[in-house]
Amino acid sequence: MANPTAAMLVIGDEILSGRTRDSNMHFLAGELTRHGITLAEARVVSDDRAAIIAAVNALRGAFDNVFTSGGIGPTHDDITAEAIAGAFGVPITQRADAMALLAAHYDRAGMPFNEARQRMARIPDGATLIDNPISTAPGFTLGNVHVMAGVPNIFQAMVASVLPTLTGGAPLLSQSLRVNRGEGEVADPFGALAAQYPDLSMGSYPFTQNGVFGTNLVIRGTDAAQIDAAMVRLVVLFA
Amino acid sequence: MANPTAAMLVIGDEILSGRTRDSNMHFLAGELTRHGITLAEARVVSDDRAAIIAAVNALRGAFDNVFTSGGIGPTHDDITAEAIAGAFGVPITQRADAMALLAAHYDRAGMPFNEARQRMARIPDGATLIDNPISTAPGFTLGNVHVMAGVPNIFQAMVASVLPTLTGGAPLLSQSLRVNRGEGEVADPFGALAAQYPDLSMGSYPFTQNGVFGTNLVIRGTDAAQIDAAMVRLVVLFA
Repeated sequence: MANPTAAMLVIGDEILSGRTRDSNMHFLAGELTRHGITLAEARVVSDDRAAIIAAVNALRGAFDNVFTSGGIGPTHDDITAEAIAGAFGVPITQRADAMALLAAHYDRAGMPFNEARQRMARIPDGATLIDNPISTAPGFTLGNVHVMAGVPNIFQAMVASVLPTLTGGAPLLSQSLRVNRGEGEVADPFGALAAQYPDLSMGSYPFTQNGVFGTNLVIRGTDAAQIDAAMVRLVVLFA
Repeated sequence: MANPTAAMLVIGDEILSGRTRDSNMHFLAGELTRHGITLAEARVVSDDRAAIIAAVNALRGAFDNVFTSGGIGPTHDDITAEAIAGAFGVPITQRADAMALLAAHYDRAGMPFNEARQRMARIPDGATLIDNPISTAPGFTLGNVHVMAGVPNIFQAMVASVLPTLTGGAPLLSQSLRVNRGEGEVADPFGALAAQYPDLSMGSYPFTQNGVFGTNLVIRGTDAAQIDAAMVRLVVLFA
């Protein structure tokens, strides 16, 4: 059976303007691969309500899981929770359990639980909270959409909370062979080998290092024995 | 007048599996911002013909320019050129000018111009070649879609070839103020300031550094005088 699929939606003007380099997509990609969920697509959109709604609705219909990052803080440009509610057509309100979590957190910290901070308790109806062990303000899951913070250490902690609740498949395994030849030299035999293993995915990635050029040949799949067999043939071809 | 818009499409299984961390999106975002083109959306899809065609057609219809990276090498998993031809519904053939460039390159290098390398001369009908000063194999522009290599130094060289040919707008300028306060403390006055400058975009980005938490407040826009005026008020509020 094919592995479950996922998409990621990164939300934030700061990524698209080049101010910030996103790291959450790469982190999530590795975690999903280990968990046996295929990350099939990723998108980045700006802090724009219509753009978020269109992307969420396209992705949640096409894939088993959607993970979002960014836009759930206390400031005026944090509009993700409102947009998710809009995408699902459900109301959004300040929720008592989220308010209690946040009130206790700011009380312990001796900081005012002001109006801006109370915005972080606004959760779409029907959602389940995602634990935030770093700074308390929760993420949430609504349907198959998991809404998480953009700050990398908080995003990572939320992924760790969510992943064990999801059905995974066979982890995607890979082996690679580094050859000191250009892609154009290995392409024909490598392509012929790939054609003989339709259940495996084979990719080639050129590099240059200290003026030497070469290619990393990567074989991916979920069946370790089949990958081993293909690797033996790859080594015979190119080693 | 609003600046021209752009989207980026990153093509490659290796990004979605977490094997490789994409750097081209962040590079392009910065270049477009300087050139006065608004990067409005970015997507990552796998080496899958249907996925590439669907994304290219959605993005080229919605934005002024589309930039793709990845999948134009000589190996069996390099299917971008064929997919772009499919998206536009045009034939793809080995083009004489691209063949001549590549033949001369491999002749100089003393390397065989074999069948795999000849695949890199396959260009959709009606496209214009994009110069590749690093490794010769060209990218191409078809309609408003610019198709470039995924290897970062080649991608960057191709962007440098393409950008001067595009109509830009006013460069997006930004100024930022770093404050040693949490987002929740600055959110209300910062939001009120943002509401008074509808032509500017204001964003807040929390950080923790050496155990101290704070927020970077960023004001973006194309009118330097307006940004200056808003910054003065920001400093009065928070400095």
